[in-house]
Amino acid sequence: MKENIRNLIDQMTLEEKAGLCSGLDFWNTKGIERLGIPSVMVTDGPHGLRKQNEGADHLGLHNSVPATCFPSAAGMASSWNRELIKRVGEALGLESQAENVAVLLGPGVNIKRSPLNGRNFEYFSEDPYLSSEMAAFHIQGVQSQGVGTSLKHFAVNNQEHRRMSVDAIVDERTLREIYLASFEGAVKQSQPWSVMCSYNQVNGEYASESEFLLTKVLRDEWGFEGFVVSDWGAVNERVKALQAGLELEMPSSAGIGDAKIVAAVQNGELLEETLNLAVERMLSFVFKAADNRKSDARYDAAEHHRLAREIARESMVLLRNEDDILPLRKEGTIAIIGEFATKPRYQGGGSSHVNPTRLDDALEEMKSAAGSAVQFKFAQGYKLASDELDVELMKEALKAAEQADVAVLFVGLPERYESEGYDRSHMKIPANHQALIEAVADIQKNLVIVLSNGSPVEMPWINKTKGILEGYLGGQAFGGAVADLLFGTSNPSGKLAETFPKKLSDNPSFLNFPGEGDRVDYREGIFVGYRYYDTKEIEPLFPFGFGLSYTNFEYSELRVDKQSLADNEAVQVSVTVQNTGNRSGQEIVQLYVRDQKSTVIRPQKELKGFQKIELQPGERTIVTFVLDKRAFAYYNVAIQDWYVETGLFDIQIGKSSREIELTAVVEVSSTIEPTVIYHRNSTLGDLLENPRTAEKAKIYMSIFGLGAALGDNPEMLAAMMRNMPLRAMVGFGQGKYTEAMLAEDLKQFNNK
Amino acid sequence: MKENIRNLIDQMTLEEKAGLCSGLDFWNTKGIERLGIPSVMVTDGPHGLRKQNEGADHLGLHNSVPATCFPSAAGMASSWNRELIKRVGEALGLESQAENVAVLLGPGVNIKRSPLNGRNFEYFSEDPYLSSEMAAFHIQGVQSQGVGTSLKHFAVNNQEHRRMSVDAIVDERTLREIYLASFEGAVKQSQPWSVMCSYNQVNGEYASESEFLLTKVLRDEWGFEGFVVSDWGAVNERVKALQAGLELEMPSSAGIGDAKIVAAVQNGELLEETLNLAVERMLSFVFKAADNRKSDARYDAAEHHRLAREIARESMVLLRNEDDILPLRKEGTIAIIGEFATKPRYQGGGSSHVNPTRLDDALEEMKSAAGSAVQFKFAQGYKLASDELDVELMKEALKAAEQADVAVLFVGLPERYESEGYDRSHMKIPANHQALIEAVADIQKNLVIVLSNGSPVEMPWINKTKGILEGYLGGQAFGGAVADLLFGTSNPSGKLAETFPKKLSDNPSFLNFPGEGDRVDYREGIFVGYRYYDTKEIEPLFPFGFGLSYTNFEYSELRVDKQSLADNEAVQVSVTVQNTGNRSGQEIVQLYVRDQKSTVIRPQKELKGFQKIELQPGERTIVTFVLDKRAFAYYNVAIQDWYVETGLFDIQIGKSSREIELTAVVEVSSTIEPTVIYHRNSTLGDLLENPRTAEKAKIYMSIFGLGAALGDNPEMLAAMMRNMPLRAMVGFGQGKYTEAMLAEDLKQFNNK
Repeated sequence: MKENIRNLIDQMTLEEKAGLCSGLDFWNTKGIERLGIPSVMVTDGPHGLRKQNEGADHLGLHNSVPATCFPSAAGMASSWNRELIKRVGEALGLESQAENVAVLLGPGVNIKRSPLNGRNFEYFSEDPYLSSEMAAFHIQGVQSQGVGTSLKHFAVNNQEHRRMSVDAIVDERTLREIYLASFEGAVKQSQPWSVMCSYNQVNGEYASESEFLLTKVLRDEWGFEGFVVSDWGAVNERVKALQAGLELEMPSSAGIGDAKIVAAVQNGELLEETLNLAVERMLSFVFKAADNRKSDARYDAAEHHRLAREIARESMVLLRNEDDILPLRKEGTIAIIGEFATKPRYQGGGSSHVNPTRLDDALEEMKSAAGSAVQFKFAQGYKLASDELDVELMKEALKAAEQADVAVLFVGLPERYESEGYDRSHMKIPANHQALIEAVADIQKNLVIVLSNGSPVEMPWINKTKGILEGYLGGQAFGGAVADLLFGTSNPSGKLAETFPKKLSDNPSFLNFPGEGDRVDYREGIFVGYRYYDTKEIEPLFPFGFGLSYTNFEYSELRVDKQSLADNEAVQVSVTVQNTGNRSGQEIVQLYVRDQKSTVIRPQKELKGFQKIELQPGERTIVTFVLDKRAFAYYNVAIQDWYVETGLFDIQIGKSSREIELTAVVEVSSTIEPTVIYHRNSTLGDLLENPRTAEKAKIYMSIFGLGAALGDNPEMLAAMMRNMPLRAMVGFGQGKYTEAMLAEDLKQFNNK
Repeated sequence: MKENIRNLIDQMTLEEKAGLCSGLDFWNTKGIERLGIPSVMVTDGPHGLRKQNEGADHLGLHNSVPATCFPSAAGMASSWNRELIKRVGEALGLESQAENVAVLLGPGVNIKRSPLNGRNFEYFSEDPYLSSEMAAFHIQGVQSQGVGTSLKHFAVNNQEHRRMSVDAIVDERTLREIYLASFEGAVKQSQPWSVMCSYNQVNGEYASESEFLLTKVLRDEWGFEGFVVSDWGAVNERVKALQAGLELEMPSSAGIGDAKIVAAVQNGELLEETLNLAVERMLSFVFKAADNRKSDARYDAAEHHRLAREIARESMVLLRNEDDILPLRKEGTIAIIGEFATKPRYQGGGSSHVNPTRLDDALEEMKSAAGSAVQFKFAQGYKLASDELDVELMKEALKAAEQADVAVLFVGLPERYESEGYDRSHMKIPANHQALIEAVADIQKNLVIVLSNGSPVEMPWINKTKGILEGYLGGQAFGGAVADLLFGTSNPSGKLAETFPKKLSDNPSFLNFPGEGDRVDYREGIFVGYRYYDTKEIEPLFPFGFGLSYTNFEYSELRVDKQSLADNEAVQVSVTVQNTGNRSGQEIVQLYVRDQKSTVIRPQKELKGFQKIELQPGERTIVTFVLDKRAFAYYNVAIQDWYVETGLFDIQIGKSSREIELTAVVEVSSTIEPTVIYHRNSTLGDLLENPRTAEKAKIYMSIFGLGAALGDNPEMLAAMMRNMPLRAMVGFGQGKYTEAMLAEDLKQFNNK
């Protein structure tokens, strides 16, 4: 195959080669008929196919062929269910085959730096490990059907504001541990056919032109074998982008980009070798797509709808359940209030907008789930198109609530609140939704809230409610899933993949989002999400990893298979989990690691493992994790590698990031001895830390004898000595120690 | 004079010149007898003279001639009293003259970035304006006596940990607005004879070798005319330091530094002109000192003690006074508990340690203030040398408390907790102090706490107390001042010059203090102190500017003399303040400015004015402030100057940073038109903002007509358009817009 491709390239003109590096139009690559190179199609998006109808305006977001609309990524990640997400991927892949689509543009793994990012609903998590795991299984699912994915948006695209020009300034350790790690795990585990570069700049360079990102990190370090496509319009300078490792410019630039490539080869600015390599990658992809094409693929829309309902259930998170208000009893009168109950907000705005094969109506689904013993009263409550309170609708809502035994309010964020293209400026729900909650709460204590939103909202009204179900953007089966969970046909099992802060200003990026002009400083560094809230001891509204169930789980017998290990060994961790309630249910068991003591700044804890298990009442099982070097390491910029500092690490097993049930301690030893270079400003304290140089330091400390003079403040003496650079002994020594002696010492210290 | 100095320099040998650039020993400059150049003495420190006794070990911190010990800077700043601090300066100057000291090494104006900095007690504030004002008047006082000051530690020396090698990484806007501003105001207003450079590095360069700091900023921009001295041992490379603008190396390097200078001139590495300029500055100083010498100077120690008591009273801050527990009634039984009551902690450890002329005993002072109607019971409570609870002392304390009508507990931080040389690792008081508070509180509800500490402490026990007097490190008259305030002989008038956070992790530098190895990142940027707490909406324990009084003040009639002004004009602000209580008292009226809307990141408010006034019961007065450009400006790095963004500004008058009583609004217009350069990645939104280019942007937006396609999501359309860079129109335009048209447009946009 590789041979054939090389032969093909030999037969191509320079113009044909350049042409293969940009799209034919908005959604197709160029074919070359005379060489038998086909044109293939790519389409949005990660939670459902958005294939344009023939002849539609290319950006017509609502004019696409019907496809199953699954929950968007924010919800899917709350399932923490690798296998289920893989099944969703398989369904997406099959639908792609049925529509002759070669690559589904997704999933998106950008980290949720701020809850304000308008596109958060399309991303998985604030945690890179969880995010990369979700993506890896999504990719595996899609690609198992012979359809490619395009992991996006690479990289550091964490806001929509000025997304095509903004420069994200991030230190390398943060890049590696947070923003790139979210891609890294997915690339290494699942080898997506494609990676999509983002619009923005990273540390002064367009992502589309970053050789560091597109070649050094992505290919050389992670072993990525596919092609890089630009986000639509992300190419700034075409030739520079090609040199950096961007093969495919999308959409078509009407020949402009191609002409630049041709000119650059002709004038020697661009090596033809570089272009050939890009063409080779494009051809590998095109032929792989052709080879995998299943022209007879068909899918069962009803079956996919059932899958959409299953993943929707697991995407939802039960946040509050006072007095066991949920599950609802199938009797009495239930008031259903809010336009969202009949016009669900089930997906986000922008490129991922899907035209669903069918759409559940929550009110109807609840009626059908409840059976005939329940009487329903519905009230619209508010108008989705407006934030203003509608007095008539409010009155109607209050009347319904008053006559009922329990009121279920459907509220959240209307589509205009969050979308691709712009960010939110606050975390509130519309004023009329909030007013409705408060007014109903005054007359109906049995109040349950169902939220539809793609990203966290503030809940100043929380204490007035008894139940809250976070529905996220639940896809086309939102209504059915809500009915399943509210009536207890299914047991809620989602947990938050992101922290819900009490208020916006608690968020770590608050002071630096969305930046100034075209620059945004990631000053919070590695302290993103729970890494920040935990370390800064800020009480969140709901912590990362949190979610309630209708049953209870108990954890016991945490075991590690070794107490100490080298950083090139793995440790196995096991814990027993038992369902001690009286319903079957799923639990997400979470494993966090904490470095007890470090010379570098590290967060309180980091997620390094999780497993979702199902248990019948009374049933118990042993959950096992394997932790390798990466679980204990930080990215050491000096050595440009992951590095474990020798010492003790807590292994924390929890129900959420704030409900740690059991902790074990292991000692991990580094197999890398970091190179210390001593210099004239190394301190006596630095010498003391190394057994090889400690003796000398002690001698100096006695010679310089501040001891006597500072005898009555030994702490100060010790500290001043520790912090004293070697060169200062020359000055303070008044001749007792010379520059020559210092030079000689340094030679010895550095001579192993 | 200048002429004479030049003549002298002509007569000096190269060795003599080099020799003048370092000390003779620890505390004296070199004299040159044959040329009539005297040797002069410099000594620590800012709140009292620390002149070594003859023959004492140079670092013998407790072996110095007696001098009046005033409160340390943390306390003095709480007075917010410019004139009083000037009087303290005059007293310090006079004592220096009496001891033949030419320069008093201080004051210190480093910003309190973290409460953990072991040397915070020697610094004024977290706010650069307050800090620079306090320093300016301190300097004026000292220098009015013909004695120089050395403003220290220049710059960005905000921790003791690794202070001789650590590199403080700070962006320039933060440097200018926070860390340098604290020096700037003092230099510009009061022209200290000397500035002392700090030990640390700033942005990769030793402060002692920073031409940016020592020459560009200090001399060229601020007009500093004196000499720069190294902190003791701060010189790294002597020649580089001289070239950067450091004249005097201290202490003596036993000729090593001098020899390096000589060699550098001889081998051409250093221009002799550069050395001559340094010598000229040294000689100007030495002869100024000689000219100002008052050999007959004497001071009245009793009078200075009275002044120490006056400033101590104003240095203390009444933090809590439930049920008007204070002032204490002069009747019944008062339990005085705590070793601090008889062994006061009245100053900090390190170079500023003064041997006081006398030392008040709080217990005795309280007895003498109370008169005979009060019965006192004293109990030691704890041992200062230990953190461990002493059961016998505890029992004794509880017995005393039980038998009394009110208990006054003296607690705080022992000297070993905070000192030059090392930082604290937490903000707690010793465990035995806390246990004592809690145990006494259980049996005695009338509980008053007197704190001795140089920097904030956490107070988890606060709700168990009725009164808290923050005594800071009150100097030798600490005891008398406490008695004056507790019994109401004087009315508390201090207000906090720093925020007391509820817990350490609330502090803005928490995640990045004291850094990693030899690097500390100031990632919080301009958000230091209340700028952070206010903007992040974190409730402090006590806010910046807070302090109670035994009387009440009411604010009214806030007036501005113009509603709108240009940035080169000043606005006068006046407000009426009335004492509505029944005691005379002093009030500190604070003025904060807030930019209502800005394209750059700005804090919620910034202190831009304050005045301390005294009012008799019922009396009212008008307080007037004048605000100029600087009050509204931020430091604009692009234009390297202070810049006011045209718009509305709130002028907030408050009793503290969190008790804003009145607000006025003014519009300030910039007289500088910032240069905007349009480029291929300027966005359509950028064009829309400028009236000159807006029309063109509108034309483009209609041509590219995403309008129709995105008609059902107008917010997304508008945002995508706003954020679209011009070059993207070439790609998306599919030939309608070319690179040539873009180039032509840019030419026009940039052509004014």
